[in-house]
Amino acid sequence: MNIRDLNIGIVGATGAAGGTALKLLLERDHPADKITLMASARSAGRKIQYGDDNIVISEASSDSFHGIDVAIFAAGGLVSRRLAPRAVEQGAFVIDKGSIFRMDPSIPLVVPEVNGDDIEWHPGIVSTPNCTSTPFVMVLDALRKLSAIKAVTVATYQSVTGSGSAGQQELIRQSGNVLGGSKADLDVYPHQIAFNILPHVDDFLSDGYTKEEQKMLNESRKILHDESLAVSATCVRVPVEISHSESLQIEFESDVTVHDAKRVLSGYDGVLVVDDPSRNEYPMPLTAAGGDDVLVGRIRMDTAHENGLALWLSCDNLRKGAALNALQIMDEAHRRDVLNPRSQRKIK
Amino acid sequence: MNIRDLNIGIVGATGAAGGTALKLLLERDHPADKITLMASARSAGRKIQYGDDNIVISEASSDSFHGIDVAIFAAGGLVSRRLAPRAVEQGAFVIDKGSIFRMDPSIPLVVPEVNGDDIEWHPGIVSTPNCTSTPFVMVLDALRKLSAIKAVTVATYQSVTGSGSAGQQELIRQSGNVLGGSKADLDVYPHQIAFNILPHVDDFLSDGYTKEEQKMLNESRKILHDESLAVSATCVRVPVEISHSESLQIEFESDVTVHDAKRVLSGYDGVLVVDDPSRNEYPMPLTAAGGDDVLVGRIRMDTAHENGLALWLSCDNLRKGAALNALQIMDEAHRRDVLNPRSQRKIK
Repeated sequence: MNIRDLNIGIVGATGAAGGTALKLLLERDHPADKITLMASARSAGRKIQYGDDNIVISEASSDSFHGIDVAIFAAGGLVSRRLAPRAVEQGAFVIDKGSIFRMDPSIPLVVPEVNGDDIEWHPGIVSTPNCTSTPFVMVLDALRKLSAIKAVTVATYQSVTGSGSAGQQELIRQSGNVLGGSKADLDVYPHQIAFNILPHVDDFLSDGYTKEEQKMLNESRKILHDESLAVSATCVRVPVEISHSESLQIEFESDVTVHDAKRVLSGYDGVLVVDDPSRNEYPMPLTAAGGDDVLVGRIRMDTAHENGLALWLSCDNLRKGAALNALQIMDEAHRRDVLNPRSQRKIK
Repeated sequence: MNIRDLNIGIVGATGAAGGTALKLLLERDHPADKITLMASARSAGRKIQYGDDNIVISEASSDSFHGIDVAIFAAGGLVSRRLAPRAVEQGAFVIDKGSIFRMDPSIPLVVPEVNGDDIEWHPGIVSTPNCTSTPFVMVLDALRKLSAIKAVTVATYQSVTGSGSAGQQELIRQSGNVLGGSKADLDVYPHQIAFNILPHVDDFLSDGYTKEEQKMLNESRKILHDESLAVSATCVRVPVEISHSESLQIEFESDVTVHDAKRVLSGYDGVLVVDDPSRNEYPMPLTAAGGDDVLVGRIRMDTAHENGLALWLSCDNLRKGAALNALQIMDEAHRRDVLNPRSQRKIK
């Protein structure tokens, strides 16, 4: 079956990640009549433009998935918990964008460039990682070809679309408030995000970390199949619309060079090295946004640790951080001919 | 002599740091007739409001410093290089905000809370550190009371006033451009800063680091009197008007606890612990701006390194990061009665 013949459903089509998935399908010329857009009852009946076509949104319900080959869930954990198992029963291959299945040992968590093989043992659902984890594991996977990794310190600079369309609206609205001299109106975030920085992404845990920081550790270990990987993360929201950036310091078991790091990163699918300081070329959210690659630059020796490298990355959190990775999981499952969950070919 | 009787000169009175110094003098009720504001010929004759008074700006020239007890230089390296030695000759105690004297071994580089003693051997000039170094060394100085520090990894989130008033104007102008749907107009920065992030502060060096990152390493070693201190810094410009924030991971020689870290930080002059995640209380640029304290929070164990702590700080880069530290150097020199450079009391 040609991939354009697949019936693809998007649950949460009105959100930022769902909307990006639809945009990516249009870029691939996926036929409009092979796309089903689903959302809550509130949005049902609304039309969404898709090239020259309009697609009417239907309500996502427990019997919405008959005839759907691939269902992309981007509507939050509660909806996935309730409807993803129904979609699998009805024959769909589910790709879940949310966090609820990610650490479930029976469900693969996949970045195709890193652990595409894990798709083979899917039980009907494959989970896509958190938007900060995806570029992070790609860079670590490239670099561990040079030497085993001992520890990674990462500080993030995460855009507001990580909180969906509502986060983006809040940044735009508050920026207007502030420029106009009025008080910023709070809704999504507990504090003003316009012209401010919040060292706070997702809920706090009792050890002082946030769930987002914990995800970077746990998801990386699962995707990289390295339970001893040591990661110390600080996740921070910044007043940027699209793309997450990350500052990494990586300690290796043995000596690595900047030259070799550039070589393995340049040769890694989905990574683009942008590293020419003399021309002011380095990754930025604005240049990563709308693109498919994880941009990596500022690659240099770590001045504080033996066998250490420091680098900087930017990645479109809606594309590779979410919707693009989901579609690439679909491509990979199609290529490996494991789309049909009922065949349950290779359960681990 | 009472400190309010000192004749204080500000060179670079029209800039962001000079303006903040003046604001701080007003908060202290320093008499208007004891303040001389200097700038380039272009600004000479302009009046600056100071409470109910207006102070006329004069041109800073090589004989401007007769009768001035304390001259605060905030007009860039070229002006300091040319005029600071003249000011010393004319009897002024010079506090230089710029970078040109900082690493000169004959000139103390001082954060009074950390190394106030170093003021005693000044040769007429004392330098104040770069705005990212000041809060950084205060936190490290507090924490090294618990255990020797092995290595520090730091990623910064630096506001545009680090580039002076022009940086602030650029952010505001570009934000308006973008919200209005037009192209951002570039002037100060090589790329758009509104709704974007630049992993680029100050010029690049041949090893891939920036001068700003190098400053954090070198200045910290000098201020902390610890030539073996290992620091790996990534300095990043963010679309925030005032206050720099920093994410730190600190590795110690021996075990430290979050409880003890909070205790020594809370007891440190000029540091305020703001760390109650359950109430969404943590340091932010907006809450640090306008205040005198370095706000420290998100204090937790480092998940990647033995004997490690992670934390987050925000600090007003114009106040403690620049003008406030300068005035505190003046206070300390006054308290120690070493203001008069010609007495040259205790040359090291």
